[in-house]
Amino acid sequence: MNPVKVGIAGLGTVGSGTVNVLKRNARDIARRVGRPIEITHIGARRDNPACDTTGMRISRDIFAVATDPDIDILVELIGGIDTARELVLTAIRNGKHVVTANKALIAEHGNEIFQAAQDNGVDVAFEASVAGGIPILKSLGEGLAANHINWLAGIINGTGNFILTEMEEGGRDFKDVLDEAQQLGYAEADPTFDVEGIDAAHKLTILASIAFGIPLQFSRVYTEGISRITTEDVASAAHFGYRIKHLGIAKDTGNGIELRVHPTLIPKETMLSAVNGVMNAVMIHGDAVGPTMFYGAGAGAEPTASAVVADIIELGRALTVDHDERVPYLGFHTDHMSDEPILTIDDVTCCFYLRLHVQDKTGVLADITRILSDNNVSIDALVQREVDQGLVPIVMMTHEVREGDMNAALAKIAALETVDSDIMRIRVENLDA
Amino acid sequence: MNPVKVGIAGLGTVGSGTVNVLKRNARDIARRVGRPIEITHIGARRDNPACDTTGMRISRDIFAVATDPDIDILVELIGGIDTARELVLTAIRNGKHVVTANKALIAEHGNEIFQAAQDNGVDVAFEASVAGGIPILKSLGEGLAANHINWLAGIINGTGNFILTEMEEGGRDFKDVLDEAQQLGYAEADPTFDVEGIDAAHKLTILASIAFGIPLQFSRVYTEGISRITTEDVASAAHFGYRIKHLGIAKDTGNGIELRVHPTLIPKETMLSAVNGVMNAVMIHGDAVGPTMFYGAGAGAEPTASAVVADIIELGRALTVDHDERVPYLGFHTDHMSDEPILTIDDVTCCFYLRLHVQDKTGVLADITRILSDNNVSIDALVQREVDQGLVPIVMMTHEVREGDMNAALAKIAALETVDSDIMRIRVENLDA
Repeated sequence: MNPVKVGIAGLGTVGSGTVNVLKRNARDIARRVGRPIEITHIGARRDNPACDTTGMRISRDIFAVATDPDIDILVELIGGIDTARELVLTAIRNGKHVVTANKALIAEHGNEIFQAAQDNGVDVAFEASVAGGIPILKSLGEGLAANHINWLAGIINGTGNFILTEMEEGGRDFKDVLDEAQQLGYAEADPTFDVEGIDAAHKLTILASIAFGIPLQFSRVYTEGISRITTEDVASAAHFGYRIKHLGIAKDTGNGIELRVHPTLIPKETMLSAVNGVMNAVMIHGDAVGPTMFYGAGAGAEPTASAVVADIIELGRALTVDHDERVPYLGFHTDHMSDEPILTIDDVTCCFYLRLHVQDKTGVLADITRILSDNNVSIDALVQREVDQGLVPIVMMTHEVREGDMNAALAKIAALETVDSDIMRIRVENLDA
Repeated sequence: MNPVKVGIAGLGTVGSGTVNVLKRNARDIARRVGRPIEITHIGARRDNPACDTTGMRISRDIFAVATDPDIDILVELIGGIDTARELVLTAIRNGKHVVTANKALIAEHGNEIFQAAQDNGVDVAFEASVAGGIPILKSLGEGLAANHINWLAGIINGTGNFILTEMEEGGRDFKDVLDEAQQLGYAEADPTFDVEGIDAAHKLTILASIAFGIPLQFSRVYTEGISRITTEDVASAAHFGYRIKHLGIAKDTGNGIELRVHPTLIPKETMLSAVNGVMNAVMIHGDAVGPTMFYGAGAGAEPTASAVVADIIELGRALTVDHDERVPYLGFHTDHMSDEPILTIDDVTCCFYLRLHVQDKTGVLADITRILSDNNVSIDALVQREVDQGLVPIVMMTHEVREGDMNAALAKIAALETVDSDIMRIRVENLDA
């Protein structure tokens, strides 16, 4: 089937991430869309060695992409406002669907852009503009569409959250952490947009419109930054049982809508307070669903590309009009199911927690550890507790082992006369990123 | 515009919740879909006083709904497998789109149902079948569609998580907590499906298919319950820095897929380990996006209805073919935007954290508390710290107050000669459900 043809304007961090994700996962993406996605044209002032653009047309003039008669979708990743606005409106007037990651553009000129898109019968998708790789706009506008949204509150600026996390965990002051964030590339040379809340206000504007069905009203967001927070404040908040987070809050009070970005004390035991470092998360409270939370990376090349490419896939599915299934029942098209084998549990490898009760005799522990060792089970930690009803409880943590080997070892240990055959074995998952 | 006509089979907990949500939020839902959603026909063996069905046709024979020529969408909420399968296939053969919350039906007969749906050119939506109100299938199949999914791990059975949470927090044993869960209505009289992991295995089957594009293979899921976990295990796990959670795990190892449900030790500091009580959460790790997590209520009348109604809205949008916008740019249709006012920050009410530095003189604190009281600010907690550079730091937490009142009070306090004018004021949000 004919590929969906994509033009990309801007080849910086997110642009190169988008090229890399579309190329690396091309096979799976074609299985999801029902036909391939092809990048045919890139507009960028300079090449970017972080991605391979072999076979793609390259223009130094980004407007050549927006007017290219050969593309179906323009992906705007140049950032900034004025040129991006002109580029997107040009693409729309040329009948292109548009995908953008540009929060400032949507928050400040979205109403105009959507009107132009409606007039020209094209779609504009902007999942990547809020909370990077978290599919928060789709979750809010589609997944929770049954609800009256009561409020939402989000950690939607990774730089700010990194600074507050470091201030709390290291007892360091704002300026000191900001310097480090700039060195790590988490903060711009001019950090105003991040630390004074403007970036978060752009994102909150977009979230609030989708939550409440109101026009985009960036100028009405109350915005306060984190630059005045001291280590004393962080410590005092902890004393009262709170953490300080920089939140964007939108709330339907019943007689008007609150839109505000500011440092906020939230109770330590709430889910949102566990969101640390550069990670983002948005809590949404709907009248039917109650509280929900969506968590993930809010920035970075590939997390943002994840959202950009999801939008391209969605438009690609919509463009694939000759197919019954817009979104296939199971996400992938039925005739593209994979026959990858399901492994038996014996082939699973993980660490184990073991609990067993043994007789209080010499040599028992030696027998057990020898059997474990013979079956490739190596012990990471072992605690022997006090004798309980004549038996000694032993708990241990193992290193990684094949489940089949662990079962063989346990069968032999359970057969020992000195060991109670009721052995408990629980798998350990570190859920490492 | 003509309403989308919905028939509902089954009027139990989720059925009545669905009726209530569709009625209560009818206006907003019509703004999202572009036309009204109308329940025209309900099939149920008996009425349910928990919802108002005035004006709806009621049949005692649920098959009368599936064959009703007047409905566009059949919503299957009867539960169970055999009759549900027959009902859904009947509806599909009659050209109806189907929405179902039935995890067992989809996990065990989904391949057959999707084939029938494809043959008849209709859609089948089942967001409510996994993790209740969390839009996890949409997030996985659409929001994260750009990714190769490396693994996912979910707390997808609220009953089991409630039991493990209570065992940990109260040091109580399995049987004791199970009895309480049965009294609270969290567990069935026969709790096998929940505590032995079958319910979670149904859900994992569905998640894995959408993650990896493989057919539904319920019979290949390795399943182990939580009934053998003791308080000793919970305490020993804590000793090693872990919590025990009952997880469904699907992992692409590169040479096959692991599908397993079992008790699992996970590090205390991971996000998933903070998910307590009957709440659900699913972590998904994609190659582009990295780790993400989706959290919310996994069961209950209205959380489940939230997902059922989201599916109805999605089908309703797809049926609204005479409209350019399938999913409107901002979730609500452009000509149905609301003009609800955005409140000024002065009208926001919340609790505050205050930090100020005052001279070490008698009467200063009295002046401050009098000004606060005169401006309707009442103090919840106050800590006076030791003198620092000639000034006494005071931090306090207030009760709820209008921001305008707080600002008026602070302006007067800052004007006192005995108070340093650099006063810090941070808002407190309890993020209460």
